[in-house]
Amino acid sequence: MQVDGRPYRTIWLNDDGETVEIIDQTKLPHRFEIARLETMEDAAIAIKDMLVRGAPLIGATAAYGMALAARSDPSNEALSAAYDHLHATRPTAINLRWALDEMMQALSPLSPTERPARAYERAAEIADEDVEINRGIGRAGLPIIEAICAGKRPGETVNILTHCNAGWLATVDWGPATAPIYMAHEAGIPVHVWVDETRPRNQGASLTAWELGHHGVPHTVIADNTGGHLMQHGMVDMVIVGTDRTTASGDVCNKIGTYLKALAARDNSVPFYVGLPSPTIDFRVHDGVKEIPIEQRSGEEVAKITGRTASGDIETVTIVPEKSPVANYAFDVTPARLVTGLVTERGVLAANREAIAAAFPERVQAAA
Amino acid sequence: MQVDGRPYRTIWLNDDGETVEIIDQTKLPHRFEIARLETMEDAAIAIKDMLVRGAPLIGATAAYGMALAARSDPSNEALSAAYDHLHATRPTAINLRWALDEMMQALSPLSPTERPARAYERAAEIADEDVEINRGIGRAGLPIIEAICAGKRPGETVNILTHCNAGWLATVDWGPATAPIYMAHEAGIPVHVWVDETRPRNQGASLTAWELGHHGVPHTVIADNTGGHLMQHGMVDMVIVGTDRTTASGDVCNKIGTYLKALAARDNSVPFYVGLPSPTIDFRVHDGVKEIPIEQRSGEEVAKITGRTASGDIETVTIVPEKSPVANYAFDVTPARLVTGLVTERGVLAANREAIAAAFPERVQAAA
Repeated sequence: MQVDGRPYRTIWLNDDGETVEIIDQTKLPHRFEIARLETMEDAAIAIKDMLVRGAPLIGATAAYGMALAARSDPSNEALSAAYDHLHATRPTAINLRWALDEMMQALSPLSPTERPARAYERAAEIADEDVEINRGIGRAGLPIIEAICAGKRPGETVNILTHCNAGWLATVDWGPATAPIYMAHEAGIPVHVWVDETRPRNQGASLTAWELGHHGVPHTVIADNTGGHLMQHGMVDMVIVGTDRTTASGDVCNKIGTYLKALAARDNSVPFYVGLPSPTIDFRVHDGVKEIPIEQRSGEEVAKITGRTASGDIETVTIVPEKSPVANYAFDVTPARLVTGLVTERGVLAANREAIAAAFPERVQAAA
Repeated sequence: MQVDGRPYRTIWLNDDGETVEIIDQTKLPHRFEIARLETMEDAAIAIKDMLVRGAPLIGATAAYGMALAARSDPSNEALSAAYDHLHATRPTAINLRWALDEMMQALSPLSPTERPARAYERAAEIADEDVEINRGIGRAGLPIIEAICAGKRPGETVNILTHCNAGWLATVDWGPATAPIYMAHEAGIPVHVWVDETRPRNQGASLTAWELGHHGVPHTVIADNTGGHLMQHGMVDMVIVGTDRTTASGDVCNKIGTYLKALAARDNSVPFYVGLPSPTIDFRVHDGVKEIPIEQRSGEEVAKITGRTASGDIETVTIVPEKSPVANYAFDVTPARLVTGLVTERGVLAANREAIAAAFPERVQAAA
């Protein structure tokens, strides 16, 4: 997408054909900084320190990390060590492992001298494939927004609420929840996005608001508590969020608080969509609430908050009493019954086992 | 209630019988400071600058403000000027006006020399009446917690979720949502409170957590997004919140986000209670969603957040992108259909017109 009129991806190969650049997301929304990855170790640090985040982008960064490793030393031993080192940065990230496996599969059969060129080629393919998946989600979701627009008076705004960041910053480009929004904006549909700030890590306020704003999409940041009130008053036409993991039955595990918005959408007859690259569907899991373990993260993420001071410094402040315990559940599960549709690269699916299986028969077979 | 073992109210007359002291709530949760009110102007500043907040406490502070005025000059002109000055501090606060009217009614018939003594007496009565109302709410709500406890294994904790601060800090003592909790704690029932941080002004994290912690009630601060997940997993036995305004039909206007918790409670069969002093019932309003205008406050309250730095200073940081618009709706309305019961000083009422009217026939008559 664009940053102030100039097109960007979240990761790209430099003109030198060897080094890689990324948007340093730890600096957002306060500073837009590009970081250069010159070595495999740079890529590992970028993943570990969350300069890049979002499953697809982590995968693409790991793939380029392997390319940087192959450039420096294409021996079996060196690639194997790079695999282990990159994998250890965020060991539970499924896309990370998948991308590393893809790279090894592409490089192992080749002689060391052939490997660097193929490594850059395969990493570029992995990045491009992610862009295509997200573009497919955008194409599938665009008609939903067009239909809402068609039901309104000419020129009337389509109001869309989103939670967390399933935007282009979480992927290589487009973003699973934002792709339909960007396409609608590009098509001249007047869209406006209500951006949940998304406590405790504030990905909505710091990332979604930033990317929408710099691409030029009208939006408003709100406290997470606000969506129900807006829906009661007809100020939300649809909700679209991303997902970290979707069950074979269509239950959606996403950032904590998603379930509350789905309940409000249902109570006010607002359609609730989930944009998802099909790799996030886990065909081995059926009941999301019962089966998906919810990660508990450090209470510090709730107790402390970072922002910029009046003088422009970045400062962290504590906002809870010193001795008060804090709990920090990272995700919740929205039952399929509350989901209007799953927007995938193969079209919009009903959130149930039959529709999902019919769209991805090969995945069902592989999981059997 | 208690602060580290020592009993406090939020406002009290000093031993000198003339000056008044309050807890300076703008310093919480980082510092526990007492502020002294020596003049009517001090009381006005305390209300205006929110050293005191919460409708009942504002009323009590205004009453003592009139007493301080009468001490200094008990003439008709001076009292009338004090009335106007105090009223202008927060002109939309209903309790403020009510308390000022009560004071004028008590003082006007008297000669100026009789006024100061009567003024202190009436202010004390107003404070005491608020304590009695909240104590009555506690007595009415305690059996609900006792019943939940009776349905559990011996020693098992009763988990209660609350939103915002309807605690003793919002009143003179006890608090409409917390009175039943404090009484249960005092009765030896093992209670634990999930405290919604309550964005954007964080009254949960900064006030409710502080008062529960210093009184010794086990509690955990959570992001507002968390309650739905906790309820899905059986970790909440009841919800109790306060209200700014309750309609004659039992719709509850309370801090933004309350409605989302009520939806989650309903979806998970968790009882949802509202603790309220009966003066918050507005018998002229029937449909809360349609009739109650929702205050929009400055977006700065969402965009900026204040806390203490590692070095102990109080600092304010901005957490949204510089150019992103921000909306800040202060309240939402929870429809009566989602409310299990209204806990009032006259007992627990069903949230419907008939039950409310039956409990407060004189109020219905007055509004007719």
